[in-house]
Order: sequence, then structure tokens, then C-alpha cells
Amino acid sequence: MKNFKIFFFLLITSLTFGQDIEGEIIDLTHTFSEESVYWVTAKEFQLEEVAKGNTGNGYYYSANNFSTAEHGGTHIDAPIHFAENKQTVDQIPLENLIGTGVKIDVSAKALKNPDYLISIEDLKNWESEHSEIPQQSIILLYTGYGKYYPDAKKYLGTDERGPDAVKKLHFPGLSPEAANWLIKNRNIKAVGLDTASIDYGQSTNFATHVALMTQNVPAFENVANLEKLPATGFQVIALPMKIKGGSGGPLRIIAIR
Amino acid sequence: MKNFKIFFFLLITSLTFGQDIEGEIIDLTHTFSEESVYWVTAKEFQLEEVAKGNTGNGYYYSANNFSTAEHGGTHIDAPIHFAENKQTVDQIPLENLIGTGVKIDVSAKALKNPDYLISIEDLKNWESEHSEIPQQSIILLYTGYGKYYPDAKKYLGTDERGPDAVKKLHFPGLSPEAANWLIKNRNIKAVGLDTASIDYGQSTNFATHVALMTQNVPAFENVANLEKLPATGFQVIALPMKIKGGSGGPLRIIAIR
Ligand SMILES: [Zn+2]
Ligand SMILES: [Zn+2]
Repeated sequence: MKNFKIFFFLLITSLTFGQDIEGEIIDLTHTFSEESVYWVTAKEFQLEEVAKGNTGNGYYYSANNFSTAEHGGTHIDAPIHFAENKQTVDQIPLENLIGTGVKIDVSAKALKNPDYLISIEDLKNWESEHSEIPQQSIILLYTGYGKYYPDAKKYLGTDERGPDAVKKLHFPGLSPEAANWLIKNRNIKAVGLDTASIDYGQSTNFATHVALMTQNVPAFENVANLEKLPATGFQVIALPMKIKGGSGGPLRIIAIR
Repeated sequence: MKNFKIFFFLLITSLTFGQDIEGEIIDLTHTFSEESVYWVTAKEFQLEEVAKGNTGNGYYYSANNFSTAEHGGTHIDAPIHFAENKQTVDQIPLENLIGTGVKIDVSAKALKNPDYLISIEDLKNWESEHSEIPQQSIILLYTGYGKYYPDAKKYLGTDERGPDAVKKLHFPGLSPEAANWLIKNRNIKAVGLDTASIDYGQSTNFATHVALMTQNVPAFENVANLEKLPATGFQVIALPMKIKGGSGGPLRIIAIR
């Protein structure tokens, strides 16, 4: 009887105020600062102080301006980044950015090989060990490289910048075949990882970006704290800055378990 | 018996993959563009195209840079914006940005008076009509001015810019007394509204900002689409750009009902 009373109390509370979003919140986002990792050819994050201190009018005031490339730090690639006429960042349905998360740990192989390409076999191995990847889930690939962030030399393979540094990039990524497999067989909402790009560092044709984005599947890059997540049992909420016509932008991504 | 089977199926699914975040998602965010409303003295949003079109390497590519003040468009005021040594935007606990939402509609009065100050009485009237505001909720104040966005003349009271335009600002806000009442009696997590500032346009001492922020309560400004929300029965998720040491920044804010 007592349980019933508690049940009805909770039922009425949840009907009135909506079901609580409950659980531990894990922030999967790196802070933006002048240390943030950017693509070697991209404009880096810059903060400009506008005010900081007592105003003389009886109150304290602090404010800044900033400038940045859309693609740097923890960010989203909107489909239009690599696919003409596909979704801009403000057009991505929020339903595709919120959902059941799956973490696929390939760190044992990837940490030994900075040119590692995550394969269909890696996905199937994960399914053998756990269960079928649910339809419409958000896939987070754990390469282990997140622990090197923001040390560019270890994280990207080079701390040089500019067009000549592109060919010196070495970090793991998702193979185009595995991207297509996830789209066709598991109808994924989005995919993210703890490196600077969903294509591996040595890619020259960005075939994984193209495979995902022509199907309107966005990618999350430079995702943080993946070591804190279990393989299953969490929800992902990934909310990007809503830039009109943007090809991507700063992303705040969290997990709730 | 059938119900039990469904129950256990859902239980096991939810134990394995985490409880789904379910319901209708309502985006409470204006897009960022050169039309976005900024404080009359703040640096406005600017997008700079870096690439757009076929690369000649077999793939399409689009990317931009942008620059902006932290405070403009749909954004968050971190406590340090008006309170020394209080939380910067990256330090705000995510638990304070996610929770039960309450919409308080004062549009009938506010649309008739652009200098309207939301009072303790307005809050008590809402409670008489609905129920006590739950502890630790996120308060969204609906003044009705959101429908004028981004028409600065109607939304801010002036379309002039620069220091001389400050005294021409006319839009409603939350009174400092009502802010203190919400903190002391209802222990709110955060408060947002559909105007450019939590203090009304004619404020010169920003006493509502100071009242909230000295207590580490952040504010959401230029919130969109509040007309789409019911008074109760929704959750708010407000995820700001994680700027290290930032006094605020672009916010993606959504409701789930
Ligand atoms: Zn990118
Ligand atoms: Zn502000």
C-alpha cells in the first residue's frame, strides 16, 4: 500500500512537471581556449577581453569577444561540411542529436597504430561481445587518443601548422566501409570520436566524411572523457551552436547514465 | 501477463541501453546570423566564408570562421558576468542547466508596458493558478517580446547602436525582488526569458543580474519559442559553449515535453 502511494505521488508529479531527466551527467566536451586543438590549416580560438572588474557604478562586470573556425575543439560536422545541399548545422533535427549511446572501444589496437582504421570487423566484434547495436543509436568511438588532448604532437601526430603539416597528420579514424555498414545496417543517428577527424589523419579523400554526410549523418570530433563511459547504458545529448547556414560549430556534448 | 512481459522487456532494454529521453523536443534557440540581436554596445555576430564548393579532389567542402561577443543571440550569462569570483561559463555544473521547467506567462501585462518589471506578485499568482514552483526548477519568463525578434526597434525599443542607445532601451525584465524571492524560497537552478536581458531595458544598476549571479544562478537571454511551451510538464536542457573562463556564451537550449 505504501508503495502504491509513492507510485501515485511520483506519477502525479511526473504528469504535472514532466519526467525528470535523471542519472549521472558526464561532460564529453573539452573547454575552448587558445590551447584547443584545431585542424592545422584552421583559424584557432581567440578570446578578447572587453571588460573585467568593478565598473565604478556599484557592480562588477566581465565580458569577452571571441573568434574561431567552426571546426575546432569539441565540435560537430554538419552534413553540408562534405556534402552539397545536405543539412547545415541549424537544420540538423534535434532528434538526431539525442539518443541511446554506444561506446566502441578500439583503443588497444589504435594506441599501437596511429594510422588505425576502425573496421566492420571491429563493429561486429563489439556486437558479439555485447548485443546488436540498437537502430538509431549514437556511436562513440573510443580510440584512446583523447588522453593526449591538447598535446598536438601526440594527438595529431604533429605540432606543425599550415598546409605542409597536413601530410604529417597521424591519428586513427573510422573506415569508409565501416561508416557505410553503420548507416545501412544500423541506421545510426550520428557518430563521434576522440580524435580531430572522423577520417584518419592520413586520409586524402575524406571518404568517411563523404559517406556519412551524403546520408545526412553528422559527426562529432574531439569528443572528451570517453574513458568515463561504459559500453552501453547511457544517453547522449549533443547540442551544437545554432549557426545559420553553418557547416558545423562548437558542440556541447554530454552523456547521462 | 502480457503487460508483465512488456514491462520486463522494457526494463531489460532500459537497464542495458539506459532510459530513453522521450518526448517532443522544442528548440528554444534563435539561429546566429548577422541579424541576431546583440546588446547595443556589443560586437555582433559575423560569419566569414572560408570554403564552399567542389574542391577538385573529388569531394565538396564548406567551412566558415565566425566572431561574436559572448553575449548576443540566445546566450547564457555565467555568474562571473556580474559577480566577481563566481562561476565562469565552463564552471557551471551541468546539473544546474538541466531540470524541471516552469513557464510563467506575464505577456498580457508586459506587452502593454515595455518597462514592465515581473514582480513577486506575478510569481505568487502563478502558484495560485498552478501549484508551488518545485524546488530546483528552471524558470522561463514569457514576456511575449520574443515574437518581435530580431526587429531591434520592437524587441529592444531602439534600433540605434552604441553607448548613446543604452538609455533608449525599453523591454520588460525580472525585478530584483522577485529574483531574490525565487532564490530564497524556491532555490531555483536558473532563469531565462524572451528579452535581451534579465534586467529590464531601463535598468542602470543591473540589480537583478547582481542578485542572481552573486548566488551562482545563471540567466538565459533571448530565449526563443516560449509560446510553444505549456506552463508545466516539460524539462529544460540548456548547454552553453564551454569557453574557458568565459563570462557567458552561445547557448543551445531545448525543452522536452
Ligand atoms: Zn570538423
Ligand atoms: Zn548576457
